[in-house]
Amino acid sequence: MIQVPRGTQDILPEESYKWQYIEKKLHEIAKNYNYEEIRTPMFESTDLFVRAVGGSTDIVNKEMYTFKDKGDRSLTLRPEGTAPVVRSYIENKMQHNVEQPVKLFYLAPMFRYERKQKGRYRQFVQFGVEAIGVEDPLIDVEVLSMLMNIYQSFGLKNLKLVINSIGDIESRNEYNKALVEHFSPRIDEFCNDCQTRINTNPMRILDCKVDRDHELVKTAPRMYDYLNDESKAYFETVKAKLDKLNINYEVDYNLVRGLDYYTHTAFELMSDAEGFGAITTLCGGGRYNGLLEMMDGPDKSGIGFALSIERLLLALEAEGIEIPKAKGIDLYICTMTDKARNAAGTLLHKLRSRNISADMDYENRKLKAQMKDADRKNAQYTIVLGEDELDSRQADLKNMETGETIKLSFDDIINTLEEL
Amino acid sequence: MIQVPRGTQDILPEESYKWQYIEKKLHEIAKNYNYEEIRTPMFESTDLFVRAVGGSTDIVNKEMYTFKDKGDRSLTLRPEGTAPVVRSYIENKMQHNVEQPVKLFYLAPMFRYERKQKGRYRQFVQFGVEAIGVEDPLIDVEVLSMLMNIYQSFGLKNLKLVINSIGDIESRNEYNKALVEHFSPRIDEFCNDCQTRINTNPMRILDCKVDRDHELVKTAPRMYDYLNDESKAYFETVKAKLDKLNINYEVDYNLVRGLDYYTHTAFELMSDAEGFGAITTLCGGGRYNGLLEMMDGPDKSGIGFALSIERLLLALEAEGIEIPKAKGIDLYICTMTDKARNAAGTLLHKLRSRNISADMDYENRKLKAQMKDADRKNAQYTIVLGEDELDSRQADLKNMETGETIKLSFDDIINTLEEL
Repeated sequence: MIQVPRGTQDILPEESYKWQYIEKKLHEIAKNYNYEEIRTPMFESTDLFVRAVGGSTDIVNKEMYTFKDKGDRSLTLRPEGTAPVVRSYIENKMQHNVEQPVKLFYLAPMFRYERKQKGRYRQFVQFGVEAIGVEDPLIDVEVLSMLMNIYQSFGLKNLKLVINSIGDIESRNEYNKALVEHFSPRIDEFCNDCQTRINTNPMRILDCKVDRDHELVKTAPRMYDYLNDESKAYFETVKAKLDKLNINYEVDYNLVRGLDYYTHTAFELMSDAEGFGAITTLCGGGRYNGLLEMMDGPDKSGIGFALSIERLLLALEAEGIEIPKAKGIDLYICTMTDKARNAAGTLLHKLRSRNISADMDYENRKLKAQMKDADRKNAQYTIVLGEDELDSRQADLKNMETGETIKLSFDDIINTLEEL
Repeated sequence: MIQVPRGTQDILPEESYKWQYIEKKLHEIAKNYNYEEIRTPMFESTDLFVRAVGGSTDIVNKEMYTFKDKGDRSLTLRPEGTAPVVRSYIENKMQHNVEQPVKLFYLAPMFRYERKQKGRYRQFVQFGVEAIGVEDPLIDVEVLSMLMNIYQSFGLKNLKLVINSIGDIESRNEYNKALVEHFSPRIDEFCNDCQTRINTNPMRILDCKVDRDHELVKTAPRMYDYLNDESKAYFETVKAKLDKLNINYEVDYNLVRGLDYYTHTAFELMSDAEGFGAITTLCGGGRYNGLLEMMDGPDKSGIGFALSIERLLLALEAEGIEIPKAKGIDLYICTMTDKARNAAGTLLHKLRSRNISADMDYENRKLKAQMKDADRKNAQYTIVLGEDELDSRQADLKNMETGETIKLSFDDIINTLEEL
């Protein structure tokens, strides 16, 4: 028997209503912040991710679904959403849009070939935003305000926002030099990946899961001390504005994020809800000022974040927050005879064409079983069709909540439900 | 410069609101018919499509994106939605669900490596439904009712529903024999594909775009004459019920559909709108009674259809139907000074946390340019913040439609907009 591919899942109706609820809310919040939707293809030229995400990252080195199409082009299922959006900004010359920054969001599957573990799938869905075209702490703070608003709007409480500044490219380079000096003498005590990282992207040694307890990681120089005056001022402004909005945060000087393209503000949102066991990252993001130029685009900067819906669902579960069930159908039609079943089919066609949600039994079950079915479908009203009802073209419309019934003609049943 | 992969497209904000509108409507109509959403992964085991869609189809032979993952599994980006849904029904043992048929819908990208042409993309989005678990003409008609309701609800008029019956598997086999007899003597006059089809799936010769004008295609035996009594009765019942619902249709005895798994009712919805130039298929579907067993599943039958959103958009365009623009933002804040910009940032955070959509200028533009921006964003209200407003913490809330203004405190602006 053929099964769902390893590391992926089917989202069945018992779960899909949750996704619909979350997605609707995310669309609303994006609208409140005036971000508009962009949809890019599921795959891109492999080159895009190698260049934008960076050749030293695990994503590019280990986790991509890369394949050739029948025209011999190397394509990759997108492992993240920023590179495609930036590609689209450049390709569509959005730097010429009258309104800057161009504020975009996406809500779309991403693909990473990772080890299977709880809440981690090889196909997962990210909601992300990108504000491209203006460098201003106001935008950094807008993005962080949206991020906090999203999680709080679902009722989550155990949230911890962690921020850092990676500085501009000059500061970043100075800091990398200091790290190389710091780690080089004892780099042989580190994992293989770190021994590569010291040449490709030394900052990522601070992020290493294997070596995180090494003495040298703890005594490493702090990014903050290498920020030039401009970078420091930018960071201080962002922090002051967050204070002004009463958004709580911690500064973590070791927060460097996994991707190569971040500058200035970098951040993660963590949950320390007990249900998780350990502290867990829900969302990450940051500013990327060199990325567009690096991709042969205009000299424009951007900032964004991405969050996984799967993680958000886990966070809701960990805090015991239930997503409201979708409302039931408007009408369930019970039928007593074959003739009634046929009449019900006709009535359903009319009801549904008038935007009323309605259903019936298709299995010739007894009335009692049909009533149970109406219950399961959470029907607001029911009618029972038998000989008498077909003869008189009238039926008792029963309100399932109050138990009240009114006798109405078939046409009036449709009219009444349409008005409700 | 890296570009969007050939044959695919970015859907930018100028277009994405149309998709949102269509998808919302499709969700509503699915709800009216009590179909619930299922989401299956973007890729499946290649085997699934080879077995379910059929080895003699163009889809499997020419159009699939097939690749190996890092665990050496052969995966394929899904070219259609029925096989994955049926796979999920079997894998999740949905035949044991209390309610049958299990009524599912999907709204998801599909992938086919096809020649580039207008309205045809290598990644396209299908809305599809599947009702699995009950064989009853009532269900066939429900599915056709939904299909017509969808297109009519968008205001489309130039619609032509074409139906046929392929009969049960017995009838289908008899008919195939007759076709082999009919075509064999002159099969060398047909295209290479048809010379293969006569051995693998002779019915598809009737569907061939190359040989459609061949004399033998026109004189071929009619499926209808090979339907056994049961199949005929089933077809007659479906037609009688469609008549009862005033759903217009034509019978086309040559309609066989491209996939191997159809039985009984098969249908296509065409548009003959002038804007299209030629008649165009918008949607196709049919009943598949042998498919589940063929895939080692239970002896259950299903019926469904799939429509492409890209085609629907073209049909709307061809008939000159415009999709309503998304409504604008609630408030645009114009700012006169740097201090006002900072204050606006704080106010925006509060507004948006209270579910009010609002925005400001981020480019230090003059008031006139900001007012134009408010217009472009279709803001319902505006305020202007300068020295006086910051001192008094009051501003004139201007209704952009009526031109009316009211002086309100900042808090009351939030409260007023929240109530609206």
